[in-house]
Amino acid sequence: MEEWPISPADPRGSPGKEQQAAGVGILLQIMMLVLSFVLGHVLRRHKFYYLPEASASLLIGLIVGGLANISNTETSIRGWFNFHEEFFFLFLLPPIIFQSGFSLAPKPFFSNFGAIVTFAILGTFISSIVTGVLVYLGGVMYLMYRLPFVECLMFGALISATDPVTVLSIFQELGTDMNLYALVFGESVLNDAMAISLYRTMSLVKSHVSSGQNFFMVILRFLETFVGSMSSGVGVGFTSALLFKYAGLEIDNLQNLECCLFVLFPYFSYMLAEGLGLSGIVSILFTGIVMKHYTFSNLSENSQRFVSAFFHLISSFAETFVFIYMGFDIAMEQHSWSHVGFIFFSILFIGIARAANVFSCAYMVNLVRPAHRQIPLKHQKALWYSGLRGAMAFALALQSVHDLPDGHGQTIFTATTAIVVLTVLLIGGSTGTMLEALQVVGDGHDGPFEESFEGNNGYIAPSYNEGTSSGNRLKMKLKEFHKSTTSFTAFDKNYLTPFFTSQNGNDDDEDEPGISVTFCLKLGPAKVA
Amino acid sequence: MEEWPISPADPRGSPGKEQQAAGVGILLQIMMLVLSFVLGHVLRRHKFYYLPEASASLLIGLIVGGLANISNTETSIRGWFNFHEEFFFLFLLPPIIFQSGFSLAPKPFFSNFGAIVTFAILGTFISSIVTGVLVYLGGVMYLMYRLPFVECLMFGALISATDPVTVLSIFQELGTDMNLYALVFGESVLNDAMAISLYRTMSLVKSHVSSGQNFFMVILRFLETFVGSMSSGVGVGFTSALLFKYAGLEIDNLQNLECCLFVLFPYFSYMLAEGLGLSGIVSILFTGIVMKHYTFSNLSENSQRFVSAFFHLISSFAETFVFIYMGFDIAMEQHSWSHVGFIFFSILFIGIARAANVFSCAYMVNLVRPAHRQIPLKHQKALWYSGLRGAMAFALALQSVHDLPDGHGQTIFTATTAIVVLTVLLIGGSTGTMLEALQVVGDGHDGPFEESFEGNNGYIAPSYNEGTSSGNRLKMKLKEFHKSTTSFTAFDKNYLTPFFTSQNGNDDDEDEPGISVTFCLKLGPAKVA
Repeated sequence: MEEWPISPADPRGSPGKEQQAAGVGILLQIMMLVLSFVLGHVLRRHKFYYLPEASASLLIGLIVGGLANISNTETSIRGWFNFHEEFFFLFLLPPIIFQSGFSLAPKPFFSNFGAIVTFAILGTFISSIVTGVLVYLGGVMYLMYRLPFVECLMFGALISATDPVTVLSIFQELGTDMNLYALVFGESVLNDAMAISLYRTMSLVKSHVSSGQNFFMVILRFLETFVGSMSSGVGVGFTSALLFKYAGLEIDNLQNLECCLFVLFPYFSYMLAEGLGLSGIVSILFTGIVMKHYTFSNLSENSQRFVSAFFHLISSFAETFVFIYMGFDIAMEQHSWSHVGFIFFSILFIGIARAANVFSCAYMVNLVRPAHRQIPLKHQKALWYSGLRGAMAFALALQSVHDLPDGHGQTIFTATTAIVVLTVLLIGGSTGTMLEALQVVGDGHDGPFEESFEGNNGYIAPSYNEGTSSGNRLKMKLKEFHKSTTSFTAFDKNYLTPFFTSQNGNDDDEDEPGISVTFCLKLGPAKVA
Repeated sequence: MEEWPISPADPRGSPGKEQQAAGVGILLQIMMLVLSFVLGHVLRRHKFYYLPEASASLLIGLIVGGLANISNTETSIRGWFNFHEEFFFLFLLPPIIFQSGFSLAPKPFFSNFGAIVTFAILGTFISSIVTGVLVYLGGVMYLMYRLPFVECLMFGALISATDPVTVLSIFQELGTDMNLYALVFGESVLNDAMAISLYRTMSLVKSHVSSGQNFFMVILRFLETFVGSMSSGVGVGFTSALLFKYAGLEIDNLQNLECCLFVLFPYFSYMLAEGLGLSGIVSILFTGIVMKHYTFSNLSENSQRFVSAFFHLISSFAETFVFIYMGFDIAMEQHSWSHVGFIFFSILFIGIARAANVFSCAYMVNLVRPAHRQIPLKHQKALWYSGLRGAMAFALALQSVHDLPDGHGQTIFTATTAIVVLTVLLIGGSTGTMLEALQVVGDGHDGPFEESFEGNNGYIAPSYNEGTSSGNRLKMKLKEFHKSTTSFTAFDKNYLTPFFTSQNGNDDDEDEPGISVTFCLKLGPAKVA
C-alpha cells in the first residue's frame, strides 16, 4: 500500500478532502486505542502493576499529544481530537456509568448499601465542602491563587469525584476482600453522580448569586435533582423489565430485536433525564442497577450473554478513549502553569478532605454495625488511598472553563488536569504495593475472585440479635435506616422480583449466580464484578 | 415522572442548557428507533409484506419530520438532526457495508462470483453511462431540466447504487432461490462500492474539466481507486487474520480484548483507505469478506458469537437510523419541486438503464455458463425489479449539493430523494407479490432457508465437461475468467486458508457451516445469510 501513487496530501481539491482529514484523525485514534489495549494486556500478563491500563492510555495520549504539538500537523489533527465536554457527556460517559451500575455485584453491594450511601452522599458532601473551604481559606491567606467562595465550592465538588477504573482492576487482579471491593466500587460510582449534582447546583448558584437564594434553597434544588434523576432512572428500568417480561421476545428467538431494544433503554434513560433538566448520570446509573437486577433475567440466555459483553466492550472503549484523550489534551492545551502553588495546596487539601470523608463516615457506619461487621482501620486506609481522580473530574473541569470565562475556570482546569495525571500515575501505580502493605490482599479467601459471591462467610446477611446496648439517638436513627435497607431486601424478594421478572422470588437468590457467574468468568480479568 | 416540577423549557440559564437541547433531540431519535424496531417486528410477525421495516422507518421519519416542520420547535430539533453527509460516511455507512461483507454466505457468493462481479462492475458502469446519457439527451430535447454532461454522469453514478436491505429481508422471509439471493445481494453490495468510486471520479473530472484530462485518464483513475482500495481492505483483513492466529488470545480466555481488537479492524481499514485518498467503502467491504473467511475462525467460540451479533446489532441501528433520517430530512429539506418532469423521466431512465445492465450482463454470463447453470429469465426479471435505491444514493446526492453549489446539486438531490422514497415504498411493498408472480418463491427447495447452504443441488460446483462446442472469442475469454475464479477457490483451500487460519484447508468446507449456521439461526429473521 505504501507505493500507492496518490499521496495523502493530494493537492487537488477532491470532494472527499475534509473526509480524508477526518479519516487520518480517526485512524490515529484507532491506532492509539489498539496500542492501549495491547500494551495494557502485555503489562497485565507480566503482572507489572506499576503501570495499569489507565496510566498506559494516559501516557500514550501524552506522548502522541506531545509529538503532535511539536510537529506542524497540529491544526488538522487537533480539529478531530478537540471534542467538547458535550461529546464526553453525551457519548463517552453514559456507557461508562451504565456499565458501573450494570456490573455491580448485587449481594456485596446491597449488604453494604448503607455504608456505600453514607460514603457517597454524605462523604462526598463533606469532602466537597472541606476542599472548598480550605481552598478559599488558602486564597484568603495568600497561600495560593484566590478564588471566590462559590468557585471554590465548584472546584471542591468536581474534584471530589473519584474514579473507579484503575484501582478496581488492580483490586481484582490481586483478589482483595469482597467488602472492601464493594465499598470502593460503590462509593466511586455513586460519588460521580453526587459530584455532578453538587457541581451543577453550585454552578446554578453562581449564575444567580444576585437573586438572593439562600442555602436552604440550594439544598432543596440539589435534592430535587438527585431524587428526580434517581426516580426517573428507576422508572425507566422498571418499564424495561415489564416490557421484556410481557413482550415474549425470548420465545420467538428474536435475539437481535431483543438486544436492540435493551441497548436503547439506558440511553433513553440518560436522555430523558437530561431533557427534563435532571442529571443523566444519576439516572443511567440507577437504570443500570435496576436493569441488571430485574430486566436482565427476562432476556433469553443468548441475549444475556450478548448484552453483558456488549456493555463491557463499549465501556472499555469509552474508558480507554477518555484516558487517551485526557493525556492528549493535557499535552496540547494552553495551561496557566503559573499557579503551581494552587496545584500543590489543592493536592494537600483534597487529601485532607478525603480523610474527613472516609474516617468520619466510617465512624458513623461502625456505630451501627455489629462488632463482627465493623469496617477495620486498614480498610478505611485503603479506601482513603483509593481516591484517585479521573474522567469525571476532568470533564467537569473542562466544563468549568466554559462556565467561568473569567480565568478562574482555566485555573481550575489546569489544577484538575495536574491532579488527575498525578493521582492516576502515582496512586494507580502504587495501589498494589499499598494493598500488600495494608495486608488486605486475598483477605478472607484464597480462591478466585468470583467465588466469594457464593462463599458463606457469615458477613453478608446482617443480624440484629446482638450489640443493642448502646443508647444514643444518632445511633438509633442510623440503625433504623440500616434496618430499612434490610427490609428493602425482603420487599424486593417478595414483591419486586416476582412482579418485574419471570422467576418467582424464592429461588432467585440461589439460581441467579448460575448464569451470571459463568458468563462473568468468560469476560476476562478487566472489571468483572 | 410527569409531575416533576422542572419543565424542560426551564428559563433559567442552566450550565447544561445546550446539553438539555441535545438530550431532547437524541431522545426523539431514540424513540423513533424504538418505534421502528417494534413496528417492523409487528408487521413482520403478521406477515404484512406491503410495508417492510425500511418503509416503516422511512414513514416514521416522514411523519415526525412533517410534525416538526409545522411546529415551532423546528430549529432546536433540526440542529440535532441535520447531520452532514460526513456523519453518514464516517459513522453510519461503515457498519452497514462491513456487515454486508461479513454476512456474505461464502459458498453461493463464490460460486456466483463471476456473475456478481459482472453485474456489479460492468453492469453498474453500463447503468451509470446509460442513465447519464439519457438524462443528458432528455435535457437537450427539452423534456426535463438540462444538466451539463458531467453532472448527468454524476447523477447516473449515484443513482445506480441499489440498496440491499429491504428486498433481501423479504427474500429471506419468503425463502427464494439461493442463487438468485446471492446475485441480488452480491450485486447490491458491490455496486455501492462501484457507484461511489464512479461518482468520485466524475466529481474529480468536474473540478478539473479545464485541465484537459481525457477519458482514458478517467478510467485509469477509477481503476487506481478501486484496485487500491480493494488491496488495502484485503491487506488489513489478512493482517487481522495473522494477528489473531498468533496472538493466542483465544487460549487465555480474554474475550473482551479479543472483541475490542476485532471490532477496531474494520474501522481501521475504512479510515486507512480514506486517509490514503481511496474509497473506504470498497476497502471495508473486502475487509469484511476476508475477516469473515479467515479471521473469524481464529476467534474463540464465544467471541465468534459475540462479534456476529455485535455487527448485526450495529448495522441494524445504522440502517434503521438512515431510513428514519431520510424520511425526516425529506420532510424538512427545502426541495425544488418545480422539476417534477425531471423526477418522472429520471425514474423512466433508471428503469431502462437497469434493464440494460441486467439483461446484457446476464446474456454475457449465460454465454459462458453450462446449460444447467444458466440464469433463467425469471431470475433476470427479479434482479431487474429488485433495484430499489436507498441510503447510498441519498448520501451521495446529499454530497452533490455541496459539490455542485450552482443549483444542479439541489435538483439532483430532490430527484434522488423522490426516487428513493418511491422505490422504497413501491418496490419494497410489492417485492413479495413480484416474487410470487415470477414463481421464484421456494424455488428448488421447500425447507428452511439456511439449509440450502448444505443442499446438494449440483448447482454449486461448476463443471467443465460439457458445452465447449461454441467457438467465438469473447466466450473463450469469459470462460478463462470463469476458470480463474474456480482456480481461486482451489488456491484458497490449499494455501490461503491453512496460512491465515488455524484449521487446515481440507475439512474447512465440510466443518465450517457447523458453527456459522447454528449461530445464524439464532440471529432471527433479518438478514441472516
